[in-house]
Amino acid sequence: MGITVTTEPQPEHSGHNDHPDNTGRPSADPAPRHLGFSRRRLIASAAVAGGTGAIGAFAGFGAGRSGAADRAEAMPSRDLRGANGPVTEPFYAPHQSGVETTPQAHAHFLALTLKPGSKAGDVMRWLRLLTADAAALTQGSGPLADSEPELAHDPARLTITFGFGRGLVKLAGEESVPKWLGPLEKFPIDDLDPDRCTGDLLLQICGDDPLTLAHARRMLWKDSRNFAEVAWQRDGFRRSYGSQGEAKTQRNLFGQLDGTANPGPGSEDFARIVWGQGTGRADAVHSARGAPPDDLGAHLPDWMRGGTTLVLRDIAMNLDTWDKADRPAREFATGRTLGSGAPLSGVDEFDVPDFDAVDKRGLTKISAAAHVARARDGLNPEMQIHRRTFNYETGAGEGAGLLFASFQADIARQFLPIQRRLAEVDLLNEWTTPIGSTVWAIPPGVKEGEYIGQSLFEG
Amino acid sequence: MGITVTTEPQPEHSGHNDHPDNTGRPSADPAPRHLGFSRRRLIASAAVAGGTGAIGAFAGFGAGRSGAADRAEAMPSRDLRGANGPVTEPFYAPHQSGVETTPQAHAHFLALTLKPGSKAGDVMRWLRLLTADAAALTQGSGPLADSEPELAHDPARLTITFGFGRGLVKLAGEESVPKWLGPLEKFPIDDLDPDRCTGDLLLQICGDDPLTLAHARRMLWKDSRNFAEVAWQRDGFRRSYGSQGEAKTQRNLFGQLDGTANPGPGSEDFARIVWGQGTGRADAVHSARGAPPDDLGAHLPDWMRGGTTLVLRDIAMNLDTWDKADRPAREFATGRTLGSGAPLSGVDEFDVPDFDAVDKRGLTKISAAAHVARARDGLNPEMQIHRRTFNYETGAGEGAGLLFASFQADIARQFLPIQRRLAEVDLLNEWTTPIGSTVWAIPPGVKEGEYIGQSLFEG
Repeated sequence: MGITVTTEPQPEHSGHNDHPDNTGRPSADPAPRHLGFSRRRLIASAAVAGGTGAIGAFAGFGAGRSGAADRAEAMPSRDLRGANGPVTEPFYAPHQSGVETTPQAHAHFLALTLKPGSKAGDVMRWLRLLTADAAALTQGSGPLADSEPELAHDPARLTITFGFGRGLVKLAGEESVPKWLGPLEKFPIDDLDPDRCTGDLLLQICGDDPLTLAHARRMLWKDSRNFAEVAWQRDGFRRSYGSQGEAKTQRNLFGQLDGTANPGPGSEDFARIVWGQGTGRADAVHSARGAPPDDLGAHLPDWMRGGTTLVLRDIAMNLDTWDKADRPAREFATGRTLGSGAPLSGVDEFDVPDFDAVDKRGLTKISAAAHVARARDGLNPEMQIHRRTFNYETGAGEGAGLLFASFQADIARQFLPIQRRLAEVDLLNEWTTPIGSTVWAIPPGVKEGEYIGQSLFEG
Repeated sequence: MGITVTTEPQPEHSGHNDHPDNTGRPSADPAPRHLGFSRRRLIASAAVAGGTGAIGAFAGFGAGRSGAADRAEAMPSRDLRGANGPVTEPFYAPHQSGVETTPQAHAHFLALTLKPGSKAGDVMRWLRLLTADAAALTQGSGPLADSEPELAHDPARLTITFGFGRGLVKLAGEESVPKWLGPLEKFPIDDLDPDRCTGDLLLQICGDDPLTLAHARRMLWKDSRNFAEVAWQRDGFRRSYGSQGEAKTQRNLFGQLDGTANPGPGSEDFARIVWGQGTGRADAVHSARGAPPDDLGAHLPDWMRGGTTLVLRDIAMNLDTWDKADRPAREFATGRTLGSGAPLSGVDEFDVPDFDAVDKRGLTKISAAAHVARARDGLNPEMQIHRRTFNYETGAGEGAGLLFASFQADIARQFLPIQRRLAEVDLLNEWTTPIGSTVWAIPPGVKEGEYIGQSLFEG
């Protein structure tokens, strides 16, 4: 029996967000993806070069062994004809990897709290160490101090993404701290565990191989234990690369097929929504939805140009009560068909929901309180985020949920309006409870010789 | 850049055991593997048919949709040209899957304790439920009560293996309880946590996809929670299928390349060592090591014919002190080269260790106290086991170790002599501590319509 693996062409989609869930939007085949990737990188880099100068000119990136300009040629085709153990994601690049990167099978989220009395100099030394080791590990090499370098040799798309909390940024000076870097406003649906709402540095370690990931986490922890304590940690998963490849929308533990409407990696929408590069540039491509919105990156401080923001919500899912809801009740709550993921107004996963469509009885097919309806505000083109989520389930009879990582250039204009609408009314709230919530500044990527956070401490 | 994936021909090896670690011995390509698999199944089935009659004649297995005889034809080629999401392991078969099965990327070990006052009838009902659901899940179907059947559709080699503890077997009558089914003798190296040494039923849930695995565990737990409590659970991992395929010896968290000397799945050695089918049959192939040993299955009770025994040790590994040992010290302790896995007396991973070889100074190249030397007793051909191990690491700064699953027909003749030698002297003991230890009766596989354990309760 042979197995045929099909990939579907990347459909046009509106860039709306409808559900906090798994996503993965690869392109149809390696060729267009390479082109798209390369073109986006060039645009992004040009913007950086013309920006604050905090990072440096584009030429600087090309000099690194993982320079963006080299990548289109160097990136192996990631279809299913080969094992992906040797496949690398870039480390030295204008943006950090692990944001636009198609989500890997596994993620370790490790939040660390600085030891009392830490000074800026301590943090700079720590970040230098972490940057050097992350650069080596993601490219398949053991760091210098690695006594098991063989465990690093199959990177399998390992990415290590740094997020800064308020406590760390403050050490560089109060004037560097953006207003939004701190706890979100309180939502009535929250039942937050204070221990899951802390941390000065976040390491988001993602990869397709669990042994490589465990080794990377251990190496980074060895770099960190003199500087920091573990604040909290959580391990998440999606489908393995080996069972599906990257080419399908995934399901969460509720069985929902979604993550259907994220902005596609490499798209102009992505650059606008996540990196805040939407307007003011001659080469900007306007949103298909009409007039270009204001530059969503306007509220990022200079040291964050090329970076973005991350809201990380730990959403517990009550699988036991969800099991008691029958399929029609579930589909009513989400506004989508469980099997195909199509909106109840349509037939295909990627059909745009029609909130005016009515059934034979004259009732709207999609309830105004359904998740898909609440998550969208058709009048506001700013209300878009990029979700990069992972399931977790710690054991039989233990907790289950979703690590909901939301990347966006502007928390106040993009994330909060959506979150407020969902907190107000969303049928899905019946089965979900946010138990952890943190906000992180994602600094830009760096060139070889620099360290992550250099633009903050020495910018 | 293209990626070339090479598979190496399966080498001849002695069937000795030298190290409690990862293993995985696939054949070089699908064709010979199919042949080998099929031939073994036929031999094994014939032995069962001519045995106690507890399971039934071979013809009965052929009738099931996953019959062993059909499998050689039905099994897709498992090379790296296709995703392995649709690949299934058989459920209805003379032996349970998950023993001879090439280890998958992930394993959930879930030990359960019967609720107080449980009767044989309760356990029979529970096992019927679990068997039906395990049969469906492993073949990619949601069980009847599954409200998220879509999560079962990519089995990715899911196997669910049942192990019985003393408490469960006793309910079928004291006369059914084998002498060896209980705690092992105490070893001086042990530092056992009593909470990790209990349980009446073990579910070993293995698969290459973490989402499928989480769903399967949840379905089995829903079947179980009216009958039992969680005794302990532990999640393990190896390299993902997607990063390497199955075709390489793996490394543990110490960075050791080993699991080199397990009996190959499908081999005559395997049948003798694990299923206890070594002698007394016209078609028995004698061990290459000389005179055939006695039938190692002689001490399995009738209801276990077609089954085997499992010793499951939870071995904590002290990565911090291991890091302080340099490479020569590590290689001296294990008796093998870290890079290639070759014995210090040889050059290739699969070279047979030569304990008499001396270096220029006249010292033996492999220390008599090295792990590889202690784990072998060249004079005793019975001292062989089949190890199927998984790494674990629960978080940064938390516990790490190895779930050391050892399958053998006779614990007293096979496992204990090796364990005693290692407990007495083994340089590796410096860095490892057994913290959990359980012994399980692995009942035989069943035909469609039967339930796992039927030979115990209704044999």
